[in-house]
Amino acid sequence: MVKKARNGYVRLSSAKHEERIAILARLKQGLLVKKDQVFEANKTDSEKAASKKLSGPLLQRLKIDENKINSLVAGIDELIAKEDSILQALESTQLDSGLDLYKVSVPIGVILVIFEARPDVVVQIASLAIKSGNAVILKGGSEAEETNRKLVEIVKDALGDFRDAVDIVFEREDIAVLLKMDKEIDLVIPRGSYELVKYVLGNTNIPVIGHTAGICSIYLDVDANRETAVSVVIDAKTQYSGACNSVETLLVHKDACERVLVPVLKELQGHGVDVRGCARAVAFAEKSGMKISKAKADDFDTEFSDLVLAAKIVDSVEDAVEHINTHGSHHTDSVITTNRACAMIFLKGVDSACVFWNASTRFSDGYRFGKGAEIGISTGKIHARGPVGIEGMLTYKYILVGQGQTVEPYVTGKATFTHKKLESGLTLD
Amino acid sequence: MVKKARNGYVRLSSAKHEERIAILARLKQGLLVKKDQVFEANKTDSEKAASKKLSGPLLQRLKIDENKINSLVAGIDELIAKEDSILQALESTQLDSGLDLYKVSVPIGVILVIFEARPDVVVQIASLAIKSGNAVILKGGSEAEETNRKLVEIVKDALGDFRDAVDIVFEREDIAVLLKMDKEIDLVIPRGSYELVKYVLGNTNIPVIGHTAGICSIYLDVDANRETAVSVVIDAKTQYSGACNSVETLLVHKDACERVLVPVLKELQGHGVDVRGCARAVAFAEKSGMKISKAKADDFDTEFSDLVLAAKIVDSVEDAVEHINTHGSHHTDSVITTNRACAMIFLKGVDSACVFWNASTRFSDGYRFGKGAEIGISTGKIHARGPVGIEGMLTYKYILVGQGQTVEPYVTGKATFTHKKLESGLTLD
Repeated sequence: MVKKARNGYVRLSSAKHEERIAILARLKQGLLVKKDQVFEANKTDSEKAASKKLSGPLLQRLKIDENKINSLVAGIDELIAKEDSILQALESTQLDSGLDLYKVSVPIGVILVIFEARPDVVVQIASLAIKSGNAVILKGGSEAEETNRKLVEIVKDALGDFRDAVDIVFEREDIAVLLKMDKEIDLVIPRGSYELVKYVLGNTNIPVIGHTAGICSIYLDVDANRETAVSVVIDAKTQYSGACNSVETLLVHKDACERVLVPVLKELQGHGVDVRGCARAVAFAEKSGMKISKAKADDFDTEFSDLVLAAKIVDSVEDAVEHINTHGSHHTDSVITTNRACAMIFLKGVDSACVFWNASTRFSDGYRFGKGAEIGISTGKIHARGPVGIEGMLTYKYILVGQGQTVEPYVTGKATFTHKKLESGLTLD
Repeated sequence: MVKKARNGYVRLSSAKHEERIAILARLKQGLLVKKDQVFEANKTDSEKAASKKLSGPLLQRLKIDENKINSLVAGIDELIAKEDSILQALESTQLDSGLDLYKVSVPIGVILVIFEARPDVVVQIASLAIKSGNAVILKGGSEAEETNRKLVEIVKDALGDFRDAVDIVFEREDIAVLLKMDKEIDLVIPRGSYELVKYVLGNTNIPVIGHTAGICSIYLDVDANRETAVSVVIDAKTQYSGACNSVETLLVHKDACERVLVPVLKELQGHGVDVRGCARAVAFAEKSGMKISKAKADDFDTEFSDLVLAAKIVDSVEDAVEHINTHGSHHTDSVITTNRACAMIFLKGVDSACVFWNASTRFSDGYRFGKGAEIGISTGKIHARGPVGIEGMLTYKYILVGQGQTVEPYVTGKATFTHKKLESGLTLD
C-alpha cells in the first residue's frame, strides 16, 4: 500500500492543476450523490458506538449529517477556487549569466495522518492532499470504520487513475509498521490525544507535526480593561472547555486583583468553573468574601479539558511570560491590557505558536485564521507552527538551469557569482 | 548549560537588530585582534593530529590560517550588511474589523549543532545564530578542541551580556545527554558522516535537519550536448570527489552511448576514475575497445566519496528518474540534454532537494547558491531542503491583535470573518 501511495504521489504531483481540480469536482459530486450511503454507514457506526456507551461528545463528533456533508462540499469548493500552490517559484536567483536558480514549491510526498473519531477528517485531508499533489495514508478511529471506509471509497472513485494516492488502514498494529517506514513515508501528522502524539514521537524516525498538549494561559495585566478581561476569560474557558485552545491557566497582576480578578472570579463561578488558586489567590479571594480551591503544584502544568482553571497572582508581565514559557505547552496564550508596552513584552517574550493581545485563545484555529481546511495544529517549531493549512503539506526543491557550467572556474577564481535576484520565475511546461 | 542557553536565546531574540549587529562587529574585531592566539591553539591541535597520523585532507580541514580568518571576517561582514530577518511580518490578515492576525518570523530557540574537524564552523554557526537571535550549543570534533575552545572564547567575549547564547561541549557522552533534552532543545543539526546522522536520528525526539548520504546522479540524455556531458561529468566527479555533492552514478540513454558515453568514459579514465558499469555498459565498452569494471548491485546505492563512478544504461528519461528516486539519496541530480521536454520530465519527476539542467552537481552549496553562510545541507523535506542558510534557523509565530473579541458570536453566526489580506505589517516596538 505504501509503495502504491508513493506511486500515487509521483503521478499526482506531476498532474496539471486542472486535473487535480477535476478530481476535487468529482469528489464533491460523489459526496452529494452518495450521501445516503454515507449516512447509512454512519448509522451502523453510531449504533455500535451507542451500544458501547461512548460519551455524548464522542458520539456527536462521530456523526455525519446533511450539515456536515454541506460543510465538506463548501470546503472543497474553497479549495477548487484557490490558486495552485505547487510548482510556484518562491525565489529566483541568477547565480551567473546563463545560470539561474529557482526555489520551487512542491508537495512533500507520502503523509501518514492518524486521527480519532471524526470521519469528516477523511474528506478534509484527502481534498487537501489532492489539491497539493500529496499522497496520504489515513488511520482512522475504529469507532468510525464503516463511515471511513465509505468516504475513502468515494474519494478513490473521484481519484480515478490516481486512486493509489489516498488509502486508509484500520488496525492499531498497522501504525507500528508504518512508523518504521522512514524511507517511504515523509511526514506523520498525529491528530489526537497527548498519549498518541507521544507514542508516535517515541516510535519513529519520520518527522512529526502535531500538538502535544494545549495548556493555554491568559494574563490579566494591571492595565486590563475589566469588561474585556471578563468576557475573554469566560469565552476562553467555557465556550468549549474540551478544545485544545481553551484556557487552563489564569495569571493576574497583583495590582489587578481588586479591580479585575473579583468580577472575573464571580463570573467564572457563575459558569460553574472550579477555580484552583495559588496561595496568594486563595488568600485574596477569602479576603474578598469568595471561596476558591487551593491549586496543587501540577495544576499549573495540566490540560484540564474541563470547567477547571488554575489561577496565579504574579508581580509583573515578565513573571507572567516566564511562567508561561516554563509551564505552558507553546500553543496559544493571550494578554489582556490597554498598555502597549506591556503587550509588546508579552507578544515578543512568550515562546508560543500563537500569542494574542485582547482576544480569546479560542481564535487559534485554521478555519478562524482563514486557512480553509486545517491538517492539524503544531506546537513544534519546525516546518509548521500553530494551525496548519495546505502550507504544511508543501516543501520546495531547487532547480538550477545552466548551459553546461562546471564549478571549477568559480573555485579557481576565473569566474565569480553574480547572485542577482531575478524578477521572472520558471515555467515548468 | 542548556538552561543558560535557553535564557541566552530568550534575551538575544528580544535584542534589537543594532545590538545583534554590534555583537557581530565585536566578533569580527576579536578575530582580527586575537588571530595569533587562534593560530597558536590551532598549532597545538594540528601537531597532536599529525602525531596521530590523521589523513591529509583531515589535517587540511583542521587548519586555520590567515586566509580562513579573512574569509570568516568577510562572512561576518555579509551578515552585518543583511537586513534583519526576525520579527518580520510574513503575512497579515484581517480576521474581522479590529481583529488582525500577523504571521511573524522568529528564531527557533536552542539549536544543537554537531560537527566534525573544521573549527571555522564555530564562527560561521555562531554568527548565524547571533544574527538570527538563536542560541546554539556546539559539539566539535575532539581533534580541534583547542582551536574550538579559543574561538568560542572570542565569540563569548563578543556576546558580552548575551554570552550564554553560545556554548560548546567536547565529550562524546555529552551528545547522548543533550539528545534526550527534547523539551529544552528545539533542533539538532548533525553535520558529518552518514553514521553520525543515523545515530542522531535513532536517538532523539528532537527534530533533526541534516543530510544522510550524497548519492548524486547525472543522466546523459539522447539529446545531450557532447562537450557539456564531458565537462560536467568530469567536474562533478573529479573536482573534489570527497564532497557530498560530487556525482556517484552516471545514467546514460541507450542511444547516447556511441556519441556521448565514449568520450565521457575516455576522459573519466584519463582522470583515473574507476568506472563500474552495469552489464550493458560493460558490454558496450568492450565493443568500443574500452575496459570498465563490472558493478556490484550495491554500487548503485553507494556514496563512494572517491574516484569511483557507477554507470548504467537506461532506455528513457523516465527510467532514469525512476532509478534516481529509488537508489539516490534525494540530494542533487542533474540532467544533460538540449531537449526541453526531456528536461521538464526530469526536473519535475526527480524527488531531490536539488535538480539541475545542464550544470554540475557540485553547484549544490549554500555559498554558491548565494546564501552566504550555510548551516548544513538537508536531504529531508521538512522545514528546510538542500543547502540551508539563515532561513533554517527561523520559524514563525502568529500574533493576533484584538479589542476584546470572543469566539462565541462567530460560532453562533452573529458575526462573520472577513479574512481580508492586510497591506501593512506590525511594528513590535
